[in-house]
Amino acid sequence: MGICSYSFEEFVEKVRAFHGFEAPGVIIGGYMVDLAYSCLPPNGAYDALCETPKCLPDAIQLLTPCSIGNGWLVVINTGRYALILYDKVTGEGVRVFVDTAKVDRWPEIRDWYFRTTPKKQKKIQDLLREIRDAGSAICSVQAVKVSSRFIGKKHRGPFAVCPVCKESYPAEDGPLCLGCKDGEICVVVSQPVAGRQ
Amino acid sequence: MGICSYSFEEFVEKVRAFHGFEAPGVIIGGYMVDLAYSCLPPNGAYDALCETPKCLPDAIQLLTPCSIGNGWLVVINTGRYALILYDKVTGEGVRVFVDTAKVDRWPEIRDWYFRTTPKKQKKIQDLLREIRDAGSAICSVQAVKVSSRFIGKKHRGPFAVCPVCKESYPAEDGPLCLGCKDGEICVVVSQPVAGRQ
Repeated sequence: MGICSYSFEEFVEKVRAFHGFEAPGVIIGGYMVDLAYSCLPPNGAYDALCETPKCLPDAIQLLTPCSIGNGWLVVINTGRYALILYDKVTGEGVRVFVDTAKVDRWPEIRDWYFRTTPKKQKKIQDLLREIRDAGSAICSVQAVKVSSRFIGKKHRGPFAVCPVCKESYPAEDGPLCLGCKDGEICVVVSQPVAGRQ
Repeated sequence: MGICSYSFEEFVEKVRAFHGFEAPGVIIGGYMVDLAYSCLPPNGAYDALCETPKCLPDAIQLLTPCSIGNGWLVVINTGRYALILYDKVTGEGVRVFVDTAKVDRWPEIRDWYFRTTPKKQKKIQDLLREIRDAGSAICSVQAVKVSSRFIGKKHRGPFAVCPVCKESYPAEDGPLCLGCKDGEICVVVSQPVAGRQ
């Protein structure tokens, strides 16, 4: 069983190149995307919601036109290993999730999924073999309609220059940018920096 | 001037393939990543923070080992067009941002950046040419140290099965998964769904 247009081995190679290593979660995610597409009309224009920031977003980014940067993929952390592909206009689509009842049949996947045994590098090949054998058999699908806040194109409004940091930001965020309003994520040690400037 | 190991044209092609179109923001982002690396010791192990979900995360994902799914890239929306690459252990690194004072010299970039004129497809080539000519000259760099919450590896704790939805989730999230606790992002229309199951 392939993963969208790729063989298992080809997809593992793509995961290594993009994600840095053959993460089991991304490979399972590949089968989840493949299953989602198999339940949807071909040639549709779909956006994606991902219910966890761990691993699964990369499977979506590798196998669909949706990315974090183009905004067609949004991560909403429910902690569940699930994704939704839905029609951009109607919000109707499918939700694919790892089904805990089905995982029980697959001991390597179960141990990895519930973290019942510590990570062992030597077992990764056994785990990957079982993931390939299981394919999407550990998943279930629901027909869903997403919340209206995820439907429709968001047009950007005008930009302003923040009076504190002097950087530009969406004017709709208020009189200050969110960094100056909510607290900085870093402290500036020095500026400017030596480099190719 | 190239963008990391790519020529301008090669990078534009990579952006098209991953992001779906030659988004000016992703291409500028390429020069920002390139500038950040030029200010950092080579061969370091760097994590990334991105201050906007718009476009810039894709430049980081295309040019660094950091992705959303592997957790080495985190998006914190301050609304500013800025990124930080920092040492995974010390939290020290560089912040690169589009400098509003420098953008003023580049009319096509300025109009696009501040959305002062409506999008015109016919002008995209003029804009891309100016982006290539400007390179990282529209950016500035600060030496920074990120907030301690972004430093150090987060180990996953045990997983639990949510008593409401029956799906697994990180036990540390509480007695229910965040989806059942905070409200669902979709309504289930029917299950299971016809498809390759």
